[in-house]
Amino acid sequence: MDDNNTLIANYLQTELDWDKEEPKSLYKPIAYAMGQNGKRIRPNLLLLITQVLGGDRAGALDAAVAFEMLHNFTLIHDDIMDNAELRRGEETVAKQWGTNVAILAGDTLFAKATEIMLKYRHKQLVSLMTLFLKTTVKICEGQQMDLDFETQTNVTVERYLKMIEYKTGVLFGACAKAGSVLGSAGPRVQKYLYDFGVHLGVAFQIQDDLLDVYGDPEKFGKPIGGDIKANKKTYPYIYACDLADKNQKKILRQTFASPLIEPDERFTIIKEIYDELDIKTKILKICDKYFEAAIYMLEKSNIGLTAHTIICDFVDTIRLRKF
Amino acid sequence: MDDNNTLIANYLQTELDWDKEEPKSLYKPIAYAMGQNGKRIRPNLLLLITQVLGGDRAGALDAAVAFEMLHNFTLIHDDIMDNAELRRGEETVAKQWGTNVAILAGDTLFAKATEIMLKYRHKQLVSLMTLFLKTTVKICEGQQMDLDFETQTNVTVERYLKMIEYKTGVLFGACAKAGSVLGSAGPRVQKYLYDFGVHLGVAFQIQDDLLDVYGDPEKFGKPIGGDIKANKKTYPYIYACDLADKNQKKILRQTFASPLIEPDERFTIIKEIYDELDIKTKILKICDKYFEAAIYMLEKSNIGLTAHTIICDFVDTIRLRKF
Repeated sequence: MDDNNTLIANYLQTELDWDKEEPKSLYKPIAYAMGQNGKRIRPNLLLLITQVLGGDRAGALDAAVAFEMLHNFTLIHDDIMDNAELRRGEETVAKQWGTNVAILAGDTLFAKATEIMLKYRHKQLVSLMTLFLKTTVKICEGQQMDLDFETQTNVTVERYLKMIEYKTGVLFGACAKAGSVLGSAGPRVQKYLYDFGVHLGVAFQIQDDLLDVYGDPEKFGKPIGGDIKANKKTYPYIYACDLADKNQKKILRQTFASPLIEPDERFTIIKEIYDELDIKTKILKICDKYFEAAIYMLEKSNIGLTAHTIICDFVDTIRLRKF
Repeated sequence: MDDNNTLIANYLQTELDWDKEEPKSLYKPIAYAMGQNGKRIRPNLLLLITQVLGGDRAGALDAAVAFEMLHNFTLIHDDIMDNAELRRGEETVAKQWGTNVAILAGDTLFAKATEIMLKYRHKQLVSLMTLFLKTTVKICEGQQMDLDFETQTNVTVERYLKMIEYKTGVLFGACAKAGSVLGSAGPRVQKYLYDFGVHLGVAFQIQDDLLDVYGDPEKFGKPIGGDIKANKKTYPYIYACDLADKNQKKILRQTFASPLIEPDERFTIIKEIYDELDIKTKILKICDKYFEAAIYMLEKSNIGLTAHTIICDFVDTIRLRKF
């Protein structure tokens, strides 16, 4: 991962020199967002899969960076919608430059990302570009579902899972699939690796929901409890509503998004009920199921023992993450 | 134009049935924006050029609709940034559904527009898609310059012209060029038709600036004086600053964007100075120069008398527009 991160960082610096672009008021925020110390899990996943399939890593770098840019475009816009102040331990683009610049920086980043995908040719171009754009649409649909949930009282686990599949899962799936296209895999392997990625992404998002409550704020890069404070319905919250007794349910419903209770206080009250219900242990178990389902899809893809082991190691680094 | 508008409307209804898409909370605003009674000048320009060059109009329809969607995506986002309440005589997406939905509706519309461009193949695909994406980036850069101008005191005519070239001109240019690509024109014709479009777009934008002050609010679809009220530096304003005597200059500078004066009052004061300086006549003359420059580029393209006449008629409908 370190090696691939160096490749990505070099690409960002040499191929995409934002400092040279005008107007500075647009490209400085873009450079800032792309330069933040993100985990770069998605481009790493793409590059790794191309590599283990014997493909040309250098040739996959364009797609890897384009997908990371797509990811950052969605983060910049999400942070406007969520009124988020911090991302990766630093101020969000919206916080630092305002909503208008953040909208335009996101738009530009996405257009530039799509331009990079145009470097591919023939069949690869159509296949990768279709994947890239369909994924973008699904991410937007997922984010819209997430927004809709804020004001809906009966969000089921099924609908929540559909939402995070779109919002987070499909991008992991797309990176895995793009890696397999660039590793010249056949349609069967592409399909299983896509499913592997989607499950991995869903597991990643459930982890994220948990870290938002139980993570170390220093490592996590965002304030703890941010989801509840921003009226986000997460897996812990929805699951707690399912498990809660009558009294706990009443407290949860009356506290969530209540304009009468301060955000910090809302988080404290809701977390107390999480603890009473041992939500942490229970959600961790569910999360593990998704990691296992991802590994199962990986097995089904039948890409050989060495490749399998390398990707499993990668999955483990995500599984054990603290941020 | 009526004929082509019917084709476009049919395409929107049959090929892009937004009513079927989920979540409704995302696609209803998109359908609303695309269904608004816009002038559809850009797709008409594209289709017309393909036609006069003897190309296949049906085959150009995908690109025409995609460019109209790109245009609408930028309008949805611009209306957030400008805090605009009305567009085409109806509420803006941002006003009706809020900023968050408007951000996502714009993002989705752009991704879907780009997907449509993927219907082209081989050389046409790369050429059209490159044009489409480079144009998008320039529009964003132009909008950012426009935002920057709000707080800058010394905006020159040159910088203003660069801004509207990016914000409005290049999209007209891209539609004209795409029409020529789909009409199988060679690179020379493509280039001149691009330049023709850019000049036409700049003329169109200067007209727009004038209509914002002197238009009929019923026909214009937006409240008169919206630019000044939203602290937008327009050609009339910048030119007035150039022509003003010391006293008028002082009034213009002290009134523009002043938080101490109500928006309506600011517009009244500034318009009075426009009238003293006969800005309307003077800007109309400049506007005419851009229309003439566009026609000159058209002549240089050497596309034949019949084709030339048809496009000149189209330019005249824009020249004489009241909204």
